[in-house]
Amino acid sequence: MDDIRDILEKIKDGKLGVDDAMLQLKQAPFLDIGYARVDMHRKIRQGASEVIYGAGKSADQIKGIVKTMKDNGQDRILVTRLSGDKADELSGEYDMVYHEEARIATLGPIPEPSGNGKIIVATGGTSDIGVAEEAAVTAQFLANDVVRLYDVGVSGLHRLLSNLDDIMSASVIIAVAGMEGALASVIGGLADCPVIAVPTSVGYGASFNGLTALLSMLNSCASGVTVVNIDNGFGAGYTASMINHAGIKAG
Amino acid sequence: MDDIRDILEKIKDGKLGVDDAMLQLKQAPFLDIGYARVDMHRKIRQGASEVIYGAGKSADQIKGIVKTMKDNGQDRILVTRLSGDKADELSGEYDMVYHEEARIATLGPIPEPSGNGKIIVATGGTSDIGVAEEAAVTAQFLANDVVRLYDVGVSGLHRLLSNLDDIMSASVIIAVAGMEGALASVIGGLADCPVIAVPTSVGYGASFNGLTALLSMLNSCASGVTVVNIDNGFGAGYTASMINHAGIKAG
Amino acid sequence: MDDIRDILEKIKDGKLGVDDAMLQLKQAPFLDIGYARVDMHRKIRQGASEVIYGAGKSADQIKGIVKTMKDNGQDRILVTRLSGDKADELSGEYDMVYHEEARIATLGPIPEPSGNGKIIVATGGTSDIGVAEEAAVTAQFLANDVVRLYDVGVSGLHRLLSNLDDIMSASVIIAVAGMEGALASVIGGLADCPVIAVPTSVGYGASFNGLTALLSMLNSCASGVTVVNIDNGFGAGYTASMINHAGIKAG
Amino acid sequence: MDDIRDILEKIKDGKLGVDDAMLQLKQAPFLDIGYARVDMHRKIRQGASEVIYGAGKSADQIKGIVKTMKDNGQDRILVTRLSGDKADELSGEYDMVYHEEARIATLGPIPEPSGNGKIIVATGGTSDIGVAEEAAVTAQFLANDVVRLYDVGVSGLHRLLSNLDDIMSASVIIAVAGMEGALASVIGGLADCPVIAVPTSVGYGASFNGLTALLSMLNSCASGVTVVNIDNGFGAGYTASMINHAGIKAG
Amino acid sequence: MDDIRDILEKIKDGKLGVDDAMLQLKQAPFLDIGYARVDMHRKIRQGASEVIYGAGKSADQIKGIVKTMKDNGQDRILVTRLSGDKADELSGEYDMVYHEEARIATLGPIPEPSGNGKIIVATGGTSDIGVAEEAAVTAQFLANDVVRLYDVGVSGLHRLLSNLDDIMSASVIIAVAGMEGALASVIGGLADCPVIAVPTSVGYGASFNGLTALLSMLNSCASGVTVVNIDNGFGAGYTASMINHAGIKAG
Amino acid sequence: MDDIRDILEKIKDGKLGVDDAMLQLKQAPFLDIGYARVDMHRKIRQGASEVIYGAGKSADQIKGIVKTMKDNGQDRILVTRLSGDKADELSGEYDMVYHEEARIATLGPIPEPSGNGKIIVATGGTSDIGVAEEAAVTAQFLANDVVRLYDVGVSGLHRLLSNLDDIMSASVIIAVAGMEGALASVIGGLADCPVIAVPTSVGYGASFNGLTALLSMLNSCASGVTVVNIDNGFGAGYTASMINHAGIKAG
Amino acid sequence: MDDIRDILEKIKDGKLGVDDAMLQLKQAPFLDIGYARVDMHRKIRQGASEVIYGAGKSADQIKGIVKTMKDNGQDRILVTRLSGDKADELSGEYDMVYHEEARIATLGPIPEPSGNGKIIVATGGTSDIGVAEEAAVTAQFLANDVVRLYDVGVSGLHRLLSNLDDIMSASVIIAVAGMEGALASVIGGLADCPVIAVPTSVGYGASFNGLTALLSMLNSCASGVTVVNIDNGFGAGYTASMINHAGIKAG
Amino acid sequence: MDDIRDILEKIKDGKLGVDDAMLQLKQAPFLDIGYARVDMHRKIRQGASEVIYGAGKSADQIKGIVKTMKDNGQDRILVTRLSGDKADELSGEYDMVYHEEARIATLGPIPEPSGNGKIIVATGGTSDIGVAEEAAVTAQFLANDVVRLYDVGVSGLHRLLSNLDDIMSASVIIAVAGMEGALASVIGGLADCPVIAVPTSVGYGASFNGLTALLSMLNSCASGVTVVNIDNGFGAGYTASMINHAGIKAG
Repeated sequence: MDDIRDILEKIKDGKLGVDDAMLQLKQAPFLDIGYARVDMHRKIRQGASEVIYGAGKSADQIKGIVKTMKDNGQDRILVTRLSGDKADELSGEYDMVYHEEARIATLGPIPEPSGNGKIIVATGGTSDIGVAEEAAVTAQFLANDVVRLYDVGVSGLHRLLSNLDDIMSASVIIAVAGMEGALASVIGGLADCPVIAVPTSVGYGASFNGLTALLSMLNSCASGVTVVNIDNGFGAGYTASMINHAGIKAG
Repeated sequence: MDDIRDILEKIKDGKLGVDDAMLQLKQAPFLDIGYARVDMHRKIRQGASEVIYGAGKSADQIKGIVKTMKDNGQDRILVTRLSGDKADELSGEYDMVYHEEARIATLGPIPEPSGNGKIIVATGGTSDIGVAEEAAVTAQFLANDVVRLYDVGVSGLHRLLSNLDDIMSASVIIAVAGMEGALASVIGGLADCPVIAVPTSVGYGASFNGLTALLSMLNSCASGVTVVNIDNGFGAGYTASMINHAGIKAG
Repeated sequence: MDDIRDILEKIKDGKLGVDDAMLQLKQAPFLDIGYARVDMHRKIRQGASEVIYGAGKSADQIKGIVKTMKDNGQDRILVTRLSGDKADELSGEYDMVYHEEARIATLGPIPEPSGNGKIIVATGGTSDIGVAEEAAVTAQFLANDVVRLYDVGVSGLHRLLSNLDDIMSASVIIAVAGMEGALASVIGGLADCPVIAVPTSVGYGASFNGLTALLSMLNSCASGVTVVNIDNGFGAGYTASMINHAGIKAG
Repeated sequence: MDDIRDILEKIKDGKLGVDDAMLQLKQAPFLDIGYARVDMHRKIRQGASEVIYGAGKSADQIKGIVKTMKDNGQDRILVTRLSGDKADELSGEYDMVYHEEARIATLGPIPEPSGNGKIIVATGGTSDIGVAEEAAVTAQFLANDVVRLYDVGVSGLHRLLSNLDDIMSASVIIAVAGMEGALASVIGGLADCPVIAVPTSVGYGASFNGLTALLSMLNSCASGVTVVNIDNGFGAGYTASMINHAGIKAG
Repeated sequence: MDDIRDILEKIKDGKLGVDDAMLQLKQAPFLDIGYARVDMHRKIRQGASEVIYGAGKSADQIKGIVKTMKDNGQDRILVTRLSGDKADELSGEYDMVYHEEARIATLGPIPEPSGNGKIIVATGGTSDIGVAEEAAVTAQFLANDVVRLYDVGVSGLHRLLSNLDDIMSASVIIAVAGMEGALASVIGGLADCPVIAVPTSVGYGASFNGLTALLSMLNSCASGVTVVNIDNGFGAGYTASMINHAGIKAG
Repeated sequence: MDDIRDILEKIKDGKLGVDDAMLQLKQAPFLDIGYARVDMHRKIRQGASEVIYGAGKSADQIKGIVKTMKDNGQDRILVTRLSGDKADELSGEYDMVYHEEARIATLGPIPEPSGNGKIIVATGGTSDIGVAEEAAVTAQFLANDVVRLYDVGVSGLHRLLSNLDDIMSASVIIAVAGMEGALASVIGGLADCPVIAVPTSVGYGASFNGLTALLSMLNSCASGVTVVNIDNGFGAGYTASMINHAGIKAG
Repeated sequence: MDDIRDILEKIKDGKLGVDDAMLQLKQAPFLDIGYARVDMHRKIRQGASEVIYGAGKSADQIKGIVKTMKDNGQDRILVTRLSGDKADELSGEYDMVYHEEARIATLGPIPEPSGNGKIIVATGGTSDIGVAEEAAVTAQFLANDVVRLYDVGVSGLHRLLSNLDDIMSASVIIAVAGMEGALASVIGGLADCPVIAVPTSVGYGASFNGLTALLSMLNSCASGVTVVNIDNGFGAGYTASMINHAGIKAG
Repeated sequence: MDDIRDILEKIKDGKLGVDDAMLQLKQAPFLDIGYARVDMHRKIRQGASEVIYGAGKSADQIKGIVKTMKDNGQDRILVTRLSGDKADELSGEYDMVYHEEARIATLGPIPEPSGNGKIIVATGGTSDIGVAEEAAVTAQFLANDVVRLYDVGVSGLHRLLSNLDDIMSASVIIAVAGMEGALASVIGGLADCPVIAVPTSVGYGASFNGLTALLSMLNSCASGVTVVNIDNGFGAGYTASMINHAGIKAG
């Protein structure tokens, strides 16, 4: 909105003609490279580095988007859902780190943690680790201190309870679980911070590729639990970072 | 099968003609009263008292079935899903106890507990108590010692953990919960006896009248958990009784 | 966990016997009043006032829980999903405010706002206002400054864009919408704070009582959007308050 | 119906016997080539060139149908859902253009645009382009002026708003989107022409292969939005062409 | 967009200050009456009279919206989903016509038909007539010539075929059907104009309140068929009018 | 088709003009009474008496259709899904029999059985009897010998096996069951005639109003089982009659 | 049942001891070959040749079952859902015909047609032919005269109507269609014989692998239509044969 | 809970400091090996050998878990859902038996049966044997006498009835079936012991990968039937063993 005000001020001051103003309103915030409109103002508008959702894009398309960003001064980039093959293609051209379990590539440095506290990423089982890493790497890239608690599913409650100190002192908790998804409710009842529940497609039969965990998490009787899409580790890590920086940004 | 052998023996011994044998095979085990075929041998075959499923039957139909049973010496009867109105009609004619929360009428005495141990009936919340009572009254009617643990949902884990002694010494546990149905998994992880999970239709929105709890319970990652239909307190109580008498019947 | 450490210290110092310690671990945190186990430590553990979920509880049960709380010094209480009839019964005995559209009763004073910034509650249409009020009243009761933006659905985008200043300066936004639920995505793209999406059961036909809005919101391509259960205004308001107090609590 | 009238007139005039009439009614409008009944009158009845739905047909079957058409004077043919492999086989025998992203082969010339105005094809993201091209190529083949607006999803609203001129001057708009499908509602609210919404199977988790986008689009609160099957770019392009020629054909 | 250009021009010409411009951008297009933001520019932007969706609004809310419209010069208003009771309340204050089967109230005159041709509204059965009337009255109110063909379901094909002349000369056809929804496909195959399919919630068992008809219509193998939400007669009538005026508006 | 041939012959013989022929083709087979097109040729074309589906029609509409039929010589009429109230209204004007459990009214005499053999109607439980009666009365009205076997569900297999003679000598069997719908498979395995399975909406929880029974019956591993819609007793009775008369009609 | 009577008679006559009788009752009707119990009496009990469902069985298992059958005098065998690879393995050992499109192998001669009339197998499109052939070959193997009407979908009604003579003179019709499945309803309205509807998994998007066609067919408003499982050509052909032989068998 | 009491006693006796106690509570019951927390107390707590769920774990991860267990004295291990490839890798390092059909590896000896009676594992068809073997091998590994009854589906009832002796004398029955899942109901009606129903993903079309069998089994009208997840042979075998040892463990 400030952009719009700027433009209006310039018109008033005679610094900008009406047609130019119309043009600026249309062209400013992104670059159209045919198959994508690369957002150049997102860093400012949304207070985050740029993110490329890698699924459904060819290696060439991803390269093109990265190039456009870097050409415009955007150096810290996160590419999600990136297969090993595409990562290999990309790493030939750009200096990047590929986080294999998370299936994420990061360009640019990982910043120092700057949030209010720790973000805990917990999983119900070993098979949920891929999604959890997507959340954890995202959060770290966005300047957060991340603690991993993996394989603490509720059918062996002592594994979870032995980490009560971490759980009760966290700033945000990301609960990643497939199957019945009960982890979110149990953690939600123990913690007094927001819990972001990530259902995973881990399971078989009536898990319906994560639908059961999703529904279960949406019905959590613990307060403070919100839910993201099945396997959406990135979304959980991104929102957790927002919350962990809440006190700060407002300051 | 013993009946069949008996009949065969009688034919061989000349005590029974072939046509009469055919007739016995056809008519023996039940009485046809038009709208229902009342089972007269179930007590023997299945080792239990007779049960009438009250839903979808008129008060008159229920009366007719009870009468047929009593006329044939079946004195201990359980009527489930019986509304208060129908219970009033029925109590005018028969000496019975109506368990309001359970919506069950029992005819005949409640026997002394004869099972291996205790059956625990636990609920996630206050609203699940109706279904839990259906299970509890059924189990008591079938000669079991029943312990009730109500409102011990997993979002307040301390309520459940404070009853660990009961949970770890039970013979069978019936876990009754709506919403996300996580109670079954947590109890299943703590107990070393069979857990029968009963999803309830309690909840709203994405609970889909118990479907979420049902799916969640079917996906329990705790071993020893099996599931019955939504709101099927009777089925849970009946099976729990079978299990609690397992060592005994075999003896 | 501090409670446990306290108890352990007392045992070590000889101030507490083992059996008494076992008893304390079991009985301390709640009062069992038969149909409910009223949580007495939740205020401390979760940093919030107590909440009673009114649906599926009789007026007498609610009164009993309120009484137990007040007898134990819990004076600020929020009762959700409370019908007008039950509110009338309750108000005869306790000094309370009934928020009709929100279907919430509050006991005790509404505190001064103490969060980092504003919580915006936006709705797609007029019919979503009930759920929105549940969120708004909850957030106000938990000491937040709340701004209401009602009837700003995306089919008339100018209604939403005219409030861009509010949207871009909010601390948390609650987006309440039925039908296609697109409001969450559009707001998520405009704002740089966490957005909590609340699908409502408003709609007809293929809205399937909120399922479509729910699925739509879970698939939001805007970052920072998380979702709660259909019509779960309370959950959204509660979590929004947690986030709005994030910087503060950590301080 | 004119055909039927013609036949009736001929009978009356003695130019046609009854049995021959019966025969004509049966055989006229298509040629039976065993695995398909190739429609010879569709061009007349439906005012369009012939279309072959390529999915589920072998290359040989498609060749056979094309041959039958060309033998009967049908020279402008569109083959949809044609894999690259089958396209290679087909191009060996017929002079055609293969539109790779659209997976469409066209035989015969692309006509000059003859409609009332422009058809806009917009997509939410890069991954929706395949379906969008199916719509765009279809519309172009049917003599329409097509404008492509790709990657203008609602989470970056400025990308869409910068094309308001196009949107507000269009004759028909085809909105192609996966995930939450909100594009249709936002465009529907901005435009004053019919919007045909095409849900795509792009997404993951709770997108359920396009079901969420489909439901979302059906629930659009914007007027003038209608919906076709998931990924049905052809259907959208075909109907858009009908609408774009509405004023003309009626003339 | 012209509004924005106007405002920009005024700033440039010194006729408007920046803050006033910001204000205009925010306030112009609607009036905020608390529970609703009444759109004052829709007539211009979308080329149609104003519509009030009556479901989920109280009679008082509807009156308030009508009053705001009329106070601002909007005299032709359509109120949909209006129960008889609310219609009675409304008719006490405003001069209106209540179309009972359509459950629509119209304020202001029905204009002369001005479209390219006829709109046909066809139903599969007698029970679909309510939804069909919603479509028909809407289309008439928007200046269209409407022909009704009711009870022409495909299980009695001769009823449909006897109206072939109408079907083949229509400008747009609205096909309204519940149960298996086959009407849309059959009409789509016979007609050479756009067909808007409206699934209805008429049926029982596996019709799932219109879901089966909806899915069936989305899968129509006839070209030119698009679909609206279950029971959405208004949406069909509105879009049909847009299409019927296509050639004209562009002129 | 014979009608069409007749008309063609008449044209040829100069007995009928072309326009009159067009008219006959359009008007002949039904009478348009506004809200319904009453079929006058169905008796001939489909070899059955006329049927009125009563659900969703007012008593007045039903009366109007009956009157039209009787005025045109159709005296044997079956009205299905007729509530008691509407039946009362109807019986005041027409001489009819109301079959209460079946919710069917029959006008005209029940004919002598004329089929190849017996039709057996079997139900799983007492609550399925209403749907079964709809099937049974329909079949009787269509001149079939019907045998009822009620409450022979598979959980008490001896009840079914005691009727093996009936099952193995039937011409067609209609298996009516709710809950898990296993009756169709067991009967299908025992019988060597076609079995028509009718799922009922009887049950609770995961019976989903008959969906489970429907799916179960569709998956029957017994050959010769086909399925109709949930609660569609009429459809089953009608088809069973067709099959029972198969040998005869062909003769 | 005759078998049981025989055994009973033999016991009575002293020709059979009780234990031997028990043994006969257990062993007689099938041969246990470990992974399968091959039915030896089915030919008699169900009046049909034996059928092997090939899916999910290895070539060796199928060979073993065939061998057991042939060793016991069963020479006419139908193997369904047989892949080309398994067919090759099987044909090395047994003299058989492999029907490629139907994916069926037949052992033994195809008998002369012996039914009441013709069975028509109709498909909506070219892609449905595989399922249709499964039905057609099954019916031919069971001694029926089969007429194939392929690619007569309702979107090109003239293709269907041109075969009205066949449709109106058939004994049974099998309607095979994917997508919206409307073929069954249209044929059901034209024919006066039983119609067996076979939904196919042909389609995309909201066809949901045949679910839409299935639901559509179950909701057919034409009388006389029953439905089998998706892609279940065998079941349709088998039942059609039963019906086509109805008059005969009863004779 | 005994562990906790032990620790408390030690504190009281001065044998354990408070911090050490806190540590013990946290670390005792499992070993954290990064990707998994291997449970060391489960044998004691749950009275069973340790189980590794192989799906979703790499061969290396499984090896690591096995090593940790064996290093800590756990010698009897069951690995489920183990593909042949991973089994080959594992068998190179450990002495184990691979049960191919069950896809289970067992380490350590199979103990003598010690339960109350026999566990029967029954399947509806040949294709269900894999899941059944998972149940059977699990039960045998847990010291149970197992009887296999394969291919006894209800469409050939005599196959099941010939094994009535086994069924009526069993201690627990596991009913494994896909398609319509009717086996559980029929066995449940014949037996007087608990029946654990295992739906399998065997089937096609409307079996929806086991969903139909699952729903059918949940709706069983036979008492004593409980259900586990689709294809969950392990869970059924594990729970059956618990029940079969019920009398014993309690002793």
